Amino acid sequence: MAKRRPLIGITMGDPSGIGPEICIKALSDKKVYDISRPVIIGDAKVIDKAAGMFGVDIEINQINKPDEGAFVYGKIDVLHMDTIDMSELIFGQVSAASGKAAFLAVKKAIGLAMLDELDATVTGPINKEALNLAGYHFAGHTEIYAHYTNTKEYTMLLAEGNLRVVHVSTHVSLREACDLVKKDRVLSIIVMAEAACRSFGISKPRIGVAGLNPHAGENGLFGSEETDEIIPAVYEARKRGIDASGPIPADTLFSKAKGGMYDIVVAMYHDQGHIPLKLTGFTWDESKNQWEALNGVNITLGLPIIRTSVDHGTAFDIAWSGIAQPKSMLTAIEYAVRMADERRKICKE
Amino acid sequence: MAKRRPLIGITMGDPSGIGPEICIKALSDKKVYDISRPVIIGDAKVIDKAAGMFGVDIEINQINKPDEGAFVYGKIDVLHMDTIDMSELIFGQVSAASGKAAFLAVKKAIGLAMLDELDATVTGPINKEALNLAGYHFAGHTEIYAHYTNTKEYTMLLAEGNLRVVHVSTHVSLREACDLVKKDRVLSIIVMAEAACRSFGISKPRIGVAGLNPHAGENGLFGSEETDEIIPAVYEARKRGIDASGPIPADTLFSKAKGGMYDIVVAMYHDQGHIPLKLTGFTWDESKNQWEALNGVNITLGLPIIRTSVDHGTAFDIAWSGIAQPKSMLTAIEYAVRMADERRKICKE
Repeated sequence: MAKRRPLIGITMGDPSGIGPEICIKALSDKKVYDISRPVIIGDAKVIDKAAGMFGVDIEINQINKPDEGAFVYGKIDVLHMDTIDMSELIFGQVSAASGKAAFLAVKKAIGLAMLDELDATVTGPINKEALNLAGYHFAGHTEIYAHYTNTKEYTMLLAEGNLRVVHVSTHVSLREACDLVKKDRVLSIIVMAEAACRSFGISKPRIGVAGLNPHAGENGLFGSEETDEIIPAVYEARKRGIDASGPIPADTLFSKAKGGMYDIVVAMYHDQGHIPLKLTGFTWDESKNQWEALNGVNITLGLPIIRTSVDHGTAFDIAWSGIAQPKSMLTAIEYAVRMADERRKICKE
Repeated sequence: MAKRRPLIGITMGDPSGIGPEICIKALSDKKVYDISRPVIIGDAKVIDKAAGMFGVDIEINQINKPDEGAFVYGKIDVLHMDTIDMSELIFGQVSAASGKAAFLAVKKAIGLAMLDELDATVTGPINKEALNLAGYHFAGHTEIYAHYTNTKEYTMLLAEGNLRVVHVSTHVSLREACDLVKKDRVLSIIVMAEAACRSFGISKPRIGVAGLNPHAGENGLFGSEETDEIIPAVYEARKRGIDASGPIPADTLFSKAKGGMYDIVVAMYHDQGHIPLKLTGFTWDESKNQWEALNGVNITLGLPIIRTSVDHGTAFDIAWSGIAQPKSMLTAIEYAVRMADERRKICKE
């Protein structure tokens, strides 16, 4: 009894970066078609070029609406948008032309998901500078999604293996991050973290809440945010029936979570969550002077639609050279499928 | 041509914790005797008890001065200090009696090293609360060493595998840590980091300096410490011929260092350095509800004597149960030997 495979829109990312290559490589993995109906959203000319360079026995099927896809392995469905003149496509460089093409694909994916024409969206890597050159003044994907879905409260979740992290703040200075550690905000992130775990199919999420200060403040010796803000937030979460623990000293919390003690960690600031995730997922090869692996997935929580993403950038230094790995893209697709499947289950209940 | 093996004083740590057990287990590894002349400093009654419980074919050789040791595998030399009544030794609990015995061993080791009767010191884990109960008001080993060696400028280095980190600040709140990111301080830590690498025998140390803010401030967008303090410090270090780079975004820096791009990382605050080190060295076993591995070494820089230490605590929950692993202690001994050997080379030059 075949269950309905979710329809996943995958944006190609900045065409000057590794996005088109990892899209082709990810959709060259049959497993993707076993679990989903994937559609690439972007300029078919770019995807066609990438398929010619990096695909093996791959055919491109240009479509105009998501449900027109063939959804069969060996034939990549591309929802075509005529957004870039191929003579303007420069590999491995920031350009307004690529920024524009990347942006329009993302905007299209959001629009389709809002209309339920996609079950979930997965985004390829874009470049902020290119976006800005093209006249789109957003800090990144998250802000574009928040804007076009009219979302006010959202946060970033990173996952790699069984390590999952949400952040109380992200792109602010460390001093401002300290100011943002407030009971209500921490509580709201704990609530989002639990909901996220449920959306992945984890039925009884165990949430580890990090301290802000070293040794989680050591009973007020090094800072008072634990006592004043985090403990009350954890207490309130527990009162609501959420299995939250903390504040836990951040330096051992991630080893514990990786070992299976917690399903998700609530990190108090960007680097507290990003350092352990990237240390686990990113491998540097000094002999080749390049990244050997860039694993991990980035998920925006709080949106009315599903959005997962690769956890790495456009990697202009290796773009269109054939060495980019699709591992992060594959994980992003898997998470999108998992979330779409759970959402359908909940809607049926 | 056998080179002279350095004489290493190893303090037993808090006798109620795992210190005595890991001392016995570490000195049951023949390799230790191939590279060093180890002496345990502490109460021989405690070590004798641990040897009876955890040692195999181990004999205890009670001595009164470091150079009286036999220094042969199978016979553990213990510089005896009559510091605890065995009827007062409670396993796995904080006590003034154990705090006192632990403290006196450390003080003794420092004194012997200052008199050149030891080439290096290695410390077993102590408990701060027990120290305080015994009337010794120090935050930890580092502060005891600083006090008894009259050292004003010192910092903590952590190492695990080829990942090494020094910290611009450690046991202060995160807000205070931000305040401590000042050019002169950062520069002084860079200088100590390079000296530390040389003391390990790394001839051309490459130093990666972390940013304080996410994305290393993204050109001043999220905080100004990079522009105002860290960049000038790195610039000054380079002018002095030190191969320092940065500020580098902390979330990818540790993957790069682990992969071999840098010999040491200068972290801006406690958790920035501790999270990646402990994630690499500490493994949690959820099925057994305990730590499976606690690897890593902690080294105090800036002292006139050599001090390395295990990178974990007294682990009262598993003390005297036979499951503690000596891996971190072995690494601490290896680093102490490496530093003592290098120091002798330099003195000969």
